[in-house]
Amino acid sequence: MQYDPYLAERVKGLQGSAIREIFKIIGQPDMISFAGGIPAPECFPNEQLAGIARDILMDHGVQALQYGVTEGYGPLLEWVTDRMRHKGLLKENDAVLITTGGQQGIDLGAKVLLNEGDGVAVEAPSFVGALNALRAYNTRLYGVPIDDDGMNMEALEQTLKANPHIKLIYAIPTFQNPSGITMSLAKRKQMLEIAARYDVLVMEDNPYEEQRFAGEPVATVKELDTEGRVLYLGSFSKMLAPGMRVGWACGPAPVIGRMTVVKQVNDVHTNLLAQMMIMEYIRRHDLDAHVAEARGVHGEKCRWMLACMDRYLPMEKVTWTRPQGGLYIWCTLLDGGDSTALVKQCAARKVAFVPGSAFAVDMAAPNPGFRLNFSAALPEKIEEGIRTLGDVIRSL
Amino acid sequence: MQYDPYLAERVKGLQGSAIREIFKIIGQPDMISFAGGIPAPECFPNEQLAGIARDILMDHGVQALQYGVTEGYGPLLEWVTDRMRHKGLLKENDAVLITTGGQQGIDLGAKVLLNEGDGVAVEAPSFVGALNALRAYNTRLYGVPIDDDGMNMEALEQTLKANPHIKLIYAIPTFQNPSGITMSLAKRKQMLEIAARYDVLVMEDNPYEEQRFAGEPVATVKELDTEGRVLYLGSFSKMLAPGMRVGWACGPAPVIGRMTVVKQVNDVHTNLLAQMMIMEYIRRHDLDAHVAEARGVHGEKCRWMLACMDRYLPMEKVTWTRPQGGLYIWCTLLDGGDSTALVKQCAARKVAFVPGSAFAVDMAAPNPGFRLNFSAALPEKIEEGIRTLGDVIRSL
Repeated sequence: MQYDPYLAERVKGLQGSAIREIFKIIGQPDMISFAGGIPAPECFPNEQLAGIARDILMDHGVQALQYGVTEGYGPLLEWVTDRMRHKGLLKENDAVLITTGGQQGIDLGAKVLLNEGDGVAVEAPSFVGALNALRAYNTRLYGVPIDDDGMNMEALEQTLKANPHIKLIYAIPTFQNPSGITMSLAKRKQMLEIAARYDVLVMEDNPYEEQRFAGEPVATVKELDTEGRVLYLGSFSKMLAPGMRVGWACGPAPVIGRMTVVKQVNDVHTNLLAQMMIMEYIRRHDLDAHVAEARGVHGEKCRWMLACMDRYLPMEKVTWTRPQGGLYIWCTLLDGGDSTALVKQCAARKVAFVPGSAFAVDMAAPNPGFRLNFSAALPEKIEEGIRTLGDVIRSL
Repeated sequence: MQYDPYLAERVKGLQGSAIREIFKIIGQPDMISFAGGIPAPECFPNEQLAGIARDILMDHGVQALQYGVTEGYGPLLEWVTDRMRHKGLLKENDAVLITTGGQQGIDLGAKVLLNEGDGVAVEAPSFVGALNALRAYNTRLYGVPIDDDGMNMEALEQTLKANPHIKLIYAIPTFQNPSGITMSLAKRKQMLEIAARYDVLVMEDNPYEEQRFAGEPVATVKELDTEGRVLYLGSFSKMLAPGMRVGWACGPAPVIGRMTVVKQVNDVHTNLLAQMMIMEYIRRHDLDAHVAEARGVHGEKCRWMLACMDRYLPMEKVTWTRPQGGLYIWCTLLDGGDSTALVKQCAARKVAFVPGSAFAVDMAAPNPGFRLNFSAALPEKIEEGIRTLGDVIRSL
């Protein structure tokens, strides 16, 4: 049987992301991976979580193993809500929903807010998982270039003006994935003004908020929003552990309410043991201290990778960003060509990273960019991998 | 701000299921619940899982807490694939995907196979979580009545003939939710013939397969399928624990491949610790023996509930099914009225169950049916709850 005729239009053009394919490469022995968006594994509190998981299953096993409510495990939902309130993100009439990782927040938001054919303005480049989540509802994506201080606001306004079917701006204002760039306070305010003028909503994806290791924090777009235009997405993936798949969405109650109904039919509720483990970790330990420690490790690794890049990469052939947080450095080949050959040659030499085309609205166009993750590899592997990268770039 | 204008058409008509609302009622103290689709909590192997979770996090913590591949945790994926092969369900060119509970299988299947406006033939009544998952893609549902031996095949054929935009049959052939009815072997074969004649696919949702406590097993529709028309959905929710949210989909590789791409943008992958815990439980213990034990408990509870019903319910006012497995008994008020008043009056007297309207294609129409779950409550509570139910029915 041929199955193409049975497939929905929305998935016909959808491709498995380069990142997912690269996860398989990462699994290969001896591969040095700068590919994933993965926090430093040496920071995972696995021993503490081992005791916590055991205690929960011994003392509250039935609750942890039985069905739960879609909104989320009560104490964790309350903790996240309080934290959002304390940080000024929770507005009157806002609500919170626990999601199966930050990724589910993007999917539920898209499912609830976008009809097929609707347009979405996204940063160019942007997170491939978000672009594909949006594509999977047959929406049309419009890339808006990024300056050193975030999305270009003239380009954003022009895009919205020229495309009145755009309903949503999807943005990662802080330590943007993949560029590592943070949107300035002025631009955040300007983005909200533009959103109001063109009557669109904003999805603020903010998984890296707590990952700042240099510079000063900038207010979230959600915090600055006085109208209720922002759906905010947070995640425990970078605060604690991504494999647990726990995140949250915070936004206007009518939108969160619809997302809750849709989440119910997507996966009923998020794994309960994971939710209870996070809550118990928060009760027994100091989550903020843990995040600070991981952030310190990430900052050191970032500085080390940048030092290796300064030493081993040919500056006449490649340039890169110097992030103040997050997990990524974005590089651009100066000859303006495509990075795919570079990625393939490096993979053959056991160094993995993601080509820029994966993050582009037009994935088929040549793309001189590529993304390096600095958090996952150990320091000696970072040096070895960057040295190889330099060799391959020189040989191109 | 008014949010209705910003919502996608697909979610405007979607309602939170009565079951989800009822989960909140279940949480109330002293409530006797026949509402959820929840396995007997006294059978959860929580002490064994406590040791397993601890050991995994101590010995393989980094793997359990880090991102994983979308397809599923390798050893578990392999175990499920082998089991499907051993049972004759895995055909040449079939593949398996680990899902975040059986519910995600339904959602991913719908997302991959159905355009907005496409029709789906469903049993009437059918599982509310599936109906809502299908509604959330703006599909049109067509209810096909159920006889004592499953879906009425003449009605199915007439429905497909009259509605050529139907692309899929969604069925729960074994211990159907909510009716408890099992489709006969002859009808399963007939359903496949009809599916071939009208060139539609079949989604076989089979979470209760292992829950047979009486009668003889019937071959799955997937097993009988020689063409590759069936997408099969399984779940560990009823075999081990629903709160873990782990299930699987088995079907033609091109369909499973698309579902994998879509799962990646829905939640990246299923909680890894849960997948590893299930695999380790399978390694250390005897899953089939555990399932047999739970099945025994469910069978005893079912017989007990039926005995209580025979004793306390007025047979001139209500009739019910006598299932050979699964988790539900389906009742019908003989006056042909609507069960909503009954459900409300019972809830006020601390007995919860789900009104038939929740399982109907037309949720607004009066519905004389209601669903009782026999697996969750303890025997003395079953008697107390059924006695109350009888009192309320008599008083109507």
